[in-house]
Amino acid sequence: MNSVSIVGVGLIGTSFGLALRKAGFKGEIAGVSSPGSIKAGIEAGAITRGVSLDEAAIASDLIYLSQPIDRMLETLRTLGPLVRPGCLVTDAGSTKVAITHTAATFLPPNSFLGGHPMAGKEQRGAIAAEADLFRDRPYVLTGAGQISNSHIAEFRIYLQKIGAQIIEMTPEEHDRTVALTSHLPQLLSTALAATLAENWEGSAPQVFGPGLIDMTRLALSAPDVWMSVLETNRGPIEDALQSFESAVREVRESLRTPAVALLFERASKFASAIRDTRKK
Amino acid sequence: MNSVSIVGVGLIGTSFGLALRKAGFKGEIAGVSSPGSIKAGIEAGAITRGVSLDEAAIASDLIYLSQPIDRMLETLRTLGPLVRPGCLVTDAGSTKVAITHTAATFLPPNSFLGGHPMAGKEQRGAIAAEADLFRDRPYVLTGAGQISNSHIAEFRIYLQKIGAQIIEMTPEEHDRTVALTSHLPQLLSTALAATLAENWEGSAPQVFGPGLIDMTRLALSAPDVWMSVLETNRGPIEDALQSFESAVREVRESLRTPAVALLFERASKFASAIRDTRKK
Repeated sequence: MNSVSIVGVGLIGTSFGLALRKAGFKGEIAGVSSPGSIKAGIEAGAITRGVSLDEAAIASDLIYLSQPIDRMLETLRTLGPLVRPGCLVTDAGSTKVAITHTAATFLPPNSFLGGHPMAGKEQRGAIAAEADLFRDRPYVLTGAGQISNSHIAEFRIYLQKIGAQIIEMTPEEHDRTVALTSHLPQLLSTALAATLAENWEGSAPQVFGPGLIDMTRLALSAPDVWMSVLETNRGPIEDALQSFESAVREVRESLRTPAVALLFERASKFASAIRDTRKK
Repeated sequence: MNSVSIVGVGLIGTSFGLALRKAGFKGEIAGVSSPGSIKAGIEAGAITRGVSLDEAAIASDLIYLSQPIDRMLETLRTLGPLVRPGCLVTDAGSTKVAITHTAATFLPPNSFLGGHPMAGKEQRGAIAAEADLFRDRPYVLTGAGQISNSHIAEFRIYLQKIGAQIIEMTPEEHDRTVALTSHLPQLLSTALAATLAENWEGSAPQVFGPGLIDMTRLALSAPDVWMSVLETNRGPIEDALQSFESAVREVRESLRTPAVALLFERASKFASAIRDTRKK
């Protein structure tokens, strides 16, 4: 693996470039992005120069897609006829079924590995990038067992050096899981902030504690990134929302009974358990 | 105001004692609590000694109640016949209507001022106390205008020195507001964790990002404290849960339409606005 191209030089793409460098990668890392992002990516030290998607396809052993999902779907269509035999294309998208399907349709066989680094922060863009963004965070790979590509082993070693926790799943398992662990929390935070907004119309309440700040942090997310996440994972998200609606009804109906204490205990046990998962 | 008693030497009570000292209070601060809490409160430097509730009632200019709500309701009943004329009793409970009603029934006129410091942390007990716990946090006072008590002015000056942001409301306004800004977020976090627990039964998922950690922090809360909050604010909480259930349904039904982007924008605007409130 001598030459890497990062398509979409934002928070994730730039962080991946910085992490690769920190892990000792000596080859070229080029970027495919807007002029502003290329400039920021070069200044950050994550990429050495900007190239076109055509140039990236001709020169790269690894093409790392880190655009919003709708843009990646377009990129995969364009890349299809350009990709060299043996090149590994991987992505950092938050849903996997739609991307895997598009990659299977347009890319040559044995060239696509699905990926999803479960890392991020409030700020966006190359300016917020960090070499350690992926450290101790889950990095889901999908379909790794199904393809034969000589660069997969090396890519995996770099992910380990970067400190990512590799987890293998099918695209379907991934999408059902993140509907519950990522998309549901996002939509609840949004629904909570929308509910409160309706009660204050224009002015914000002053009477709140740190809990409301935690619970509305995800609601700060920009809609643009989320629209294509929601579009490409509707079924599992609708299922997750329906499960949750039942849980809220259960909470409301149990308020007058001792059952509410059991619900608190079940919830508290789960909240502790996911924190223990992280400490390991 | 020469003598203060803190009834319930936990996180809030001990922090109040430490804050009073830091603000220059030179009088005695006694504690009414379990032997373990009295020991911890003395070691922290928040109280000088442990006393009985009877002794506290005889000696104090200010009695600061910082127990769980159900315990405070009992304390108010017991305190009724013991309180000296001119003594100010105030509390730190998370709901105000039930406490105010009980105080009005059992305490002498002009002795009760409702209070709610909107501060806290995950850890509990005197050991987690901080002199600056109330700094830059809202501190709701209820009924201050309705009573004539010579210690109110001095208590208010100490709250200002402590850095608390005093907000005056009626008990009813307070309870409706915190149903939305505090009790609703708590119950959502609990319902979210319970929903996820149901989907993994025993094991926790590994595939999640920092968003799920934010959204399940409140779910860690111990049920005991919350049961009496829920019991004393059922009506407003049921209303808040119903508004929220409509919002979740709206999110689910808008997933297939462009309306979901507008919902994200409304929510994001609100989430920014409450953060701006804090910065002022």
